[in-house]
Order: sequence, then C-alpha cells, then structure tokens
Amino acid sequence: MNPLFPKEVYQERRNRLKQSVGGGVAVFLTNEEAPMNYPSNTYRYRQDSNFLYFFGLSLPGMAAVIDFDEGRDIIFGDDFGIDDIIWMGPQPTIASLAEKVGVTDTRPMAKLADYLKGRKVLFTPPYRFDNQIKLSALTGIAIGNLKQSASAELIKGIVALRSAKDKYEIEQMENAGIIGAIMHTSVMKRCKPGVSERELAGLAEGVALSYGEGISFPVILSQHGETLHNHNHNGILTEGNFLLMDAGAENTMNYCSDHTRTYPVSGKFTQKQKEIYEIVLKANMEGIANVKPGVYYRDVHFIAAEIIAAGLKELGIMKGDVKEAARTGAYALFCPHGLGHQLGLDVHDMEDLGENYVGYDDTVSRSEIFGISALRMARELREGFIITVEPGIYFIPELIDIWKSEKKFAEFINYDKVEEYRHFGGIRIEDDVLVTADGHKVIGPHIPKSVEELENTVGKE
Amino acid sequence: MNPLFPKEVYQERRNRLKQSVGGGVAVFLTNEEAPMNYPSNTYRYRQDSNFLYFFGLSLPGMAAVIDFDEGRDIIFGDDFGIDDIIWMGPQPTIASLAEKVGVTDTRPMAKLADYLKGRKVLFTPPYRFDNQIKLSALTGIAIGNLKQSASAELIKGIVALRSAKDKYEIEQMENAGIIGAIMHTSVMKRCKPGVSERELAGLAEGVALSYGEGISFPVILSQHGETLHNHNHNGILTEGNFLLMDAGAENTMNYCSDHTRTYPVSGKFTQKQKEIYEIVLKANMEGIANVKPGVYYRDVHFIAAEIIAAGLKELGIMKGDVKEAARTGAYALFCPHGLGHQLGLDVHDMEDLGENYVGYDDTVSRSEIFGISALRMARELREGFIITVEPGIYFIPELIDIWKSEKKFAEFINYDKVEEYRHFGGIRIEDDVLVTADGHKVIGPHIPKSVEELENTVGKE
Repeated sequence: MNPLFPKEVYQERRNRLKQSVGGGVAVFLTNEEAPMNYPSNTYRYRQDSNFLYFFGLSLPGMAAVIDFDEGRDIIFGDDFGIDDIIWMGPQPTIASLAEKVGVTDTRPMAKLADYLKGRKVLFTPPYRFDNQIKLSALTGIAIGNLKQSASAELIKGIVALRSAKDKYEIEQMENAGIIGAIMHTSVMKRCKPGVSERELAGLAEGVALSYGEGISFPVILSQHGETLHNHNHNGILTEGNFLLMDAGAENTMNYCSDHTRTYPVSGKFTQKQKEIYEIVLKANMEGIANVKPGVYYRDVHFIAAEIIAAGLKELGIMKGDVKEAARTGAYALFCPHGLGHQLGLDVHDMEDLGENYVGYDDTVSRSEIFGISALRMARELREGFIITVEPGIYFIPELIDIWKSEKKFAEFINYDKVEEYRHFGGIRIEDDVLVTADGHKVIGPHIPKSVEELENTVGKE
Repeated sequence: MNPLFPKEVYQERRNRLKQSVGGGVAVFLTNEEAPMNYPSNTYRYRQDSNFLYFFGLSLPGMAAVIDFDEGRDIIFGDDFGIDDIIWMGPQPTIASLAEKVGVTDTRPMAKLADYLKGRKVLFTPPYRFDNQIKLSALTGIAIGNLKQSASAELIKGIVALRSAKDKYEIEQMENAGIIGAIMHTSVMKRCKPGVSERELAGLAEGVALSYGEGISFPVILSQHGETLHNHNHNGILTEGNFLLMDAGAENTMNYCSDHTRTYPVSGKFTQKQKEIYEIVLKANMEGIANVKPGVYYRDVHFIAAEIIAAGLKELGIMKGDVKEAARTGAYALFCPHGLGHQLGLDVHDMEDLGENYVGYDDTVSRSEIFGISALRMARELREGFIITVEPGIYFIPELIDIWKSEKKFAEFINYDKVEEYRHFGGIRIEDDVLVTADGHKVIGPHIPKSVEELENTVGKE
C-alpha cells in the first residue's frame, strides 16, 4: 500500500472540483500495468496523476467517478480471490482501500459501464493505449476522436486545483528535492575522464530507486548538452567536455524533482567555459529572484533571455539592443527552449491535460516566434505554484547553419564569432522554485552550482 | 545506435524462417515509446524481441516484413526531418540502418498498408496496446480477436529458431550473466539489519542500468520469499529474516540474466534455516547436473521435486514415497512453481508467443496437477537452449491453510510438523544454464550460493 495524505485531503479536492464543474460524471481510469516485452513483464507501475490527486491509491484495476449531478464519489474495482492471495499474500479489499481516501461507495468493475450509460461522461485526454481502448468502449467514441472529446471544463477545473500545491504536497516536493540532490551530487563526485556515461546515468537512476519510486523522466546525461533530445548514454567521459545532467526523482508519493547541472568532466572550468557558464548562472539566479505571485512567467522568461543576450553581447557573439534581441527571439539561436514548466505529480505537471491549459490562459496565449513558442509556462504565477527555472546556452551546429544561411537576425548575431564556439557544446542550469505568498523558495537542498562549488565537488569522491 | 551482430546473422535467421513458413507475409511492428504519466514522458525504450532477433535495430517507428511468397525482406520507416535533427543531432537514414542488418529494400511507412492489402498477413500475438490498435487497422481484425488470429506456423518457426542460441547470443548471455552477478554480490555485501529493501532494490537496478540496459524484469527483493508475486520494497531488513532477491539484467544487446539468491539478513544461518536451505541447494545443483541434450526438462523438474520431498521427509515435514510425492504433486505445497523457463532476449523467453509453444510440443503437454501445471518448460532439451534452474521451498500460510483444511495429500504431508515452519518464509536458488553438445554450462560468473560462501559475503562491504 502506498503512503497517503489524510482522507480529508482527497475529499476536499473532490469537493472543490464539484464546485467548479457544472454537471455530468467524470470518470478516472487507473493506469494499468504496462507491458515491456511480453504481457506479464511490465514496466514499473505508475498511477495516473489525476487519479492520484483525487483518489490517492497507487494501484491498477480500478476506475473512479466523481458524479457532479449526484454529488457522489465511487470507486469501481474487484477484490482479489484466494487464488491470487496464495501468490500475492493477503490483500486489502477495494472497500478498505477506498475508505482510506474517504470514499464509502465502492462497486464491482462490471457495474461501471451501466453507471455511465446515458450520462454526460467527462474525461481527461487518455494517453495510455489500453485506457483509450477501454474509454472508447465505455463512451462509444472512436479511439481517434477521444482526445478532442475530452472535457475542457473538467480539465480547467483540475488545472486550477493542481497548479496550487498545498502544504502536504510542498512537503512531498521538498522530499523529492532531497532525492534529486543526492542524484546530482553522487554523479558529480564520480564524474571524471574515463568513466562511462552509462555508469553515471545508472548511478543517478539507482539513487532515485533507492530513495523513491524512480526517475521522474528519462535521465539526460550527455557530453553534448546542445543536443536537447538526447537519451543515449554510450559515451566515455572525456577531458575538455562538459557533462550535462538533467534528471529528477519521484518520491514514494509520486511527487517529482527536476534539476540540471552542467560542469566540466575534468572538474576545472576553462576561461571560455567559465564565461558562458556565468551567463547561464546569472539567468538562472535572476530568473529565480523574479519569481513571485502576480508576475507573468513569460516576463521572467524574457528577463532570462535578456541576460543571455547581454552576456553573449559582451563576448561579441551577439550585438544590438538586448531587449529587442529577447522580444524578437534572436536569443533563441542559443536557447531554443522555454525558461520552465510547472512541476508536481508530473515532471511537466499536468501535461496530459494539454500544455495550453496548464501554461496559458485567457490573458496570455502562445507566441509563434521560434524559441518563445517553446515556452511551456507563460501565465501569471500564484502562491503554491511550483515551477522550474532552467535557462541554457547551446551551440547547435545544425541550427547555426540554418540561421546563418538565412542571415536570420544578422542584426543581433555575429555569425563569424559564433563559429569560434561551434564545438562548445551546451549548458543548462535548472532549479525547482515554489511561489510563496510574497516571493519564492527554492525546493530541496542546495545543489552545487557556482563555478567554485562545482570545482570543489566534481570528481571528489 | 545499438550494437548489432554482423548483418549475415540477421540475413541467415530470416532465410531460415523462410524455409519453415510456407507462404504469406509476416509483419513485425517495432515497439513504440511507452507513455508513463503523459504522452511524451516514456518508460525506457524496449524493442520487441522478435524484431530484434530478425532485424536487430532497437528503434521505434518502423515495421518490417518477411515476404514468404516473394522471398523479400523490407523495412518500412520514415527518415527524420531537419526540425527533428535540430533537437536530436544528426540521425542515420532508414536505408543506412537497414543496410546494417542486411536489408536493402526500405520504403516509407505510408506504403505498408498497401503492401499488405489482399495478402495473407502473418503476425505474432501483439502485447503492446498501440500495436494492437495499429495491427487491427492494418488487418481489419478486431482488437479482441487479434491474439487468436496470430499465426501458429509463424510462431512455431520463430520458437524453433530462437530456442537454440548461437555463439553470438551465448556470448551476450555470458555478458548479461556478469551484470547479474554484480547485481547480486553488490546487494549481498550491503545486506544488513536496518537497511531498507528499497535501497537494495535500487542498488540492484542501478547496477543493471550502469552496465546494461536495465533490469530484465521487476526486481523481487523480499523478506517474504514465500509470497511469490511480491514487488513491494517497503520493508526494513530485520535480523532473523531471510532476504530473497530474484533479479536480472538486460545487457546492451537486450540479452537477459535471471538469478535468485536467498540468505539470512544477519549473514549467519540458523540450524533450521540451514536445513531447509541445503535441500533447495541440492535440488538446484542436481537439477543443473541433469541438464543435457535429449532430456525432457519435465523430468529434471521431477528430479528436483523428489529432492525436495526427500529432504522434507528427512525433517519430518513430508512422508511416504518421494517419487510418488513428486509425480502426484504433493511436494507442490512447498514449491508451487516450475523448475524453470527458457531465457534469451526475454527473461521468460518468447513468452509473448505463448508458453505452450515455447515449453511444450507434440510430445509433451501441460499437466493439470497444481504445481506441475505451473512448469513453463517441459520439453526436450537441445543444444543451445538456455534455461533457468530455480527450485524453491516456501511455507505459504494461505496455501497451507487451504490444503490442511482439505486434508490434501495427508499421506505425504505432516501438517502438524508444517505448523512449526509456518513463519519460516521462503527460499529459492536460481541459475542460468546453457545446454551444450554433451551436457551443460552455467552462464555467467559463479555467484555465492553455498552456506559458507554466503556467510563469507553477506554484510561484508
């Protein structure tokens, strides 16, 4: 049995959802075991985050409904039989499980279809293929049409609740932050030329499994930080390279951490490495410093973008007005991704519900400018939100070549100077930040990030 | 790019399959990325083992056909565009990938449906739900009917090939065995009272990730070895208990290890623990000693069952004729599972194809007796087969209570004496064994398993 919050926490969450959704019945399917290479050989079990948020139980084989018309919460599921118990040991009943999360109405799974028949059924976009098959059978909606048939009203109600973390959740996030810090410092200490990337990625994931449920997303550990989508760990650490690790843990209640650190494999920055690193560090720290309620996160993104543009201008890589370089997206050659995203039960929190619901609202919509368009979180920060602050500077040969050939933003970019950095690689620095009543708090213990701290840690087993 | 065997290996495998399948066209879909808690947050990628065996490439987004009518092999897939390459770095083309596994005919994915139209399409039972949806669309067979529509001829042809491992595969299996040995000895050394099960399970999985692709199946690490299906790691190691770990690695070519060791948390066996342990050890070693070509594995199972019955008889727990106790299934109160299974690219090798095709054939069919019926592998051993030998003795309170109340096998079981062991727990000892031309060879390095070896290793960091 997984750890749970007091049952009143789940009851209150469901009741608050009832206040925001007008009618119908929302159905939440549990995630099932996910087959890896044959039906019974499964990946680690991961419950759906919406189910976890409203119903807490981290077990497959159930469905829950919140009936907005009847004001009723029900968990559907079947008890184990004696044949299962011989192999699994004594198992709690569905009723006793439901009671732990404040649900007193439980019914056999076979009754679910009847319960939903003829009702207005609300659901979130299903991302597991087995649940798509099930939901299609329950609703009569073709699999290909399920996503577009998801309930915007339900999604908005969930996003409103899950975005603002309560004290119970913040405690869990701090706990996840501790695991994340151990992952990063363990890898830093063992980092030295000759060690394999695979060994270090395994070390990080092993820590996440030893102290929590595992990694919150596939470990990015690379000497090519400029390759943003890079999950291979086949390299051997080489003197002169940077090592970038973007990795996080899920704690035992499935709350996530997400940190990035970048440092020289050798443990010692060159002057050139240090110059770029300090720009990213400043963007990270100024980004964090600007987090507070009432601020639009897109504006924090622009602050970081200006710092990047200003720093690169100082090195002769960029030129022109730095505010303009930020607003027009000229900086995005060096940082094509956004400053951050919400974090909670998912590492990109609520991404299953749709990024535009989570990071945007009626007051701010997604930009179409390359780089700015990649920003996952743009809207106004409120107390209880937890976001990542993760600026980076990358020299991406493929992107440089395209922009250079198009003379794109030639008024902001010194392409000749850029060539000197062609093989520089990429740097990202990422922390997790809670929006407090009057400002912010970095989640979890401090992980070495200044040049001095890193030089004192990397390779020092 | 994953490591590959020489292209001739894959060509020969496909050609041998063509000799055994009479006609039609077999389609092999790659496994796709598997969503964990939202679409883009995926579990570690695992290619389908049949695709790996015939086409080697460990990448999603492709389909391959072996056309038995035309004698043709084709890989269908689409090259990455420049937008992807900006994020992923330079990527090989489908044609260059296919060439590495001896396939010269490649076509865009959109051409697959046309190619199969009007043809007799053969496929293996799809276990990934997204591939069920795809295969249903390609064949017009309803999702619920796909499994029963799989081709027995294709399955039999694949099982015949994959069961006998070639020299390339045996080398990889040895490599997986090395990783498995490190997993087990690392955990043994750190095992001591007060350490958490979770920490040790994370340590084992971390090793599997540091030296290979990860675990070959979810780690079983438990102080309740008698609970056979037990994947929770919430306990703290306690003096007096056994620790059972059943765990294996997948190496970088996706070949699997699978070992079990059981030892006292304290590092020191009591007399009672030692007595039962020595019976299991004898069953394991005699089981291994009897592995050779021409032997039916069900007979090896019975040899182990007799050793268990004889040993328990000596302790007064069983009585009567031990051969009878084995054949009738009376021993199965203490060992309700089979002696082992095939091992290769899957930890239960080819289980997606159906256990009855893999472990049984025209000369031996599945028993209906409890315990014996659980035997996954019964058929005649041949050179190149790799099997696990994993006897155990368990005291399962739920099962004891049922059998006792039914007076089941009362002529073989001293139920009063059994009560003295009610809280004893469970022991299993498992090794991976290759069938050689004239006998057998244990795969991988020796992992401590005698009482003396374990007492010299457990807790000795």
